[in-house]
Amino acid sequence: MLPERLRRVIELFALLPGVGEKTAQRFALHLASDASRVAEELGRELSELSSRIRPCARCQNLADVSEGEEAVCAICRDPRRDARLLCIVHRVQDLLAIERSGAMRGRYFVLGRLLSPLDGIGPDQLPVQALLERVRADGVSEVIVATPPSVDGEATALFLARELSALGVRVSRIASGVPHGGDLEFADQVTLGRAIDGRRSMG
Amino acid sequence: MLPERLRRVIELFALLPGVGEKTAQRFALHLASDASRVAEELGRELSELSSRIRPCARCQNLADVSEGEEAVCAICRDPRRDARLLCIVHRVQDLLAIERSGAMRGRYFVLGRLLSPLDGIGPDQLPVQALLERVRADGVSEVIVATPPSVDGEATALFLARELSALGVRVSRIASGVPHGGDLEFADQVTLGRAIDGRRSMG
Repeated sequence: MLPERLRRVIELFALLPGVGEKTAQRFALHLASDASRVAEELGRELSELSSRIRPCARCQNLADVSEGEEAVCAICRDPRRDARLLCIVHRVQDLLAIERSGAMRGRYFVLGRLLSPLDGIGPDQLPVQALLERVRADGVSEVIVATPPSVDGEATALFLARELSALGVRVSRIASGVPHGGDLEFADQVTLGRAIDGRRSMG
Repeated sequence: MLPERLRRVIELFALLPGVGEKTAQRFALHLASDASRVAEELGRELSELSSRIRPCARCQNLADVSEGEEAVCAICRDPRRDARLLCIVHRVQDLLAIERSGAMRGRYFVLGRLLSPLDGIGPDQLPVQALLERVRADGVSEVIVATPPSVDGEATALFLARELSALGVRVSRIASGVPHGGDLEFADQVTLGRAIDGRRSMG
């Protein structure tokens, strides 16, 4: 019952994370019926996205690029950042979450993927050479591995710690435990086990 | 921390219905990091949307248009549809919902808005002339008013019924009551009142 073109827009919206057929239809109808200016500007921005935004040449965070320029993100360009402290994350989303916490004064390295035998992602698919090169070039003294506390995230952290140990840098892992405001009664066993194993002296 | 261009994309996504800042960021990062082909095609489709899709000249449903052609939607073009039965809906979404039910063999008229004194929408802002013209031109004999059973929807239905009565067509209103599978215990008072008022003889 819908125009061919609109059906294609709905199919494309449904490829976004967490968007089903119904939500995609809602987006498309809104843009087609009530918000043609938003549709036009969003369309223009999205078609130019891949030519205007590229992974940062140093950390793989997303960076604006002008023509012919090398992509370097805002964090890597910021001289107030401590170049000797490097935080490894899985995705740009994780970098943003850590930035919001305000607890990280160093720089980042975005892996883009985690070790995952089930998905056929082995050590060769991780950007290990780029990471080691970055650590050497910047004279990094401490690396914080902030991959998620999942099976794949832990495996990746262990693997990277081993690779980095040869360079003589300090490698640490973010703490895992009961979240702030969390209820012990409803925490799962693994989380509670980690909270106990990772206990810190209060004295 | 994000590139300027990506921030604009996030702002635009956040204008979609039901999309907040976090979801918008998730969409934008997904397209920028993992799905540049989807971004490009979606961008192209959206920028062309307003020139390729227009309200149907007869019912205001959305219709594909080629250059120079008048926009007539798939339903208005379908000769198997009963032209003498017309269903008035608020939005294209409502038309699609009714189509899914399979209960409507006639055609539609999409109002685009409802009477709403609070939003300053009075009778003059409704496409009454286009509706009356459509009823006359197609020789419509029954009009089903399927505006939603809300305050605005009911007011609009009453107003349209009065306007249509002069043309001598039969005007009916969709039934309102306890939904299929609904629990009487949890139905609100207005819905239950309507279910009783609208009771049908079983004899």
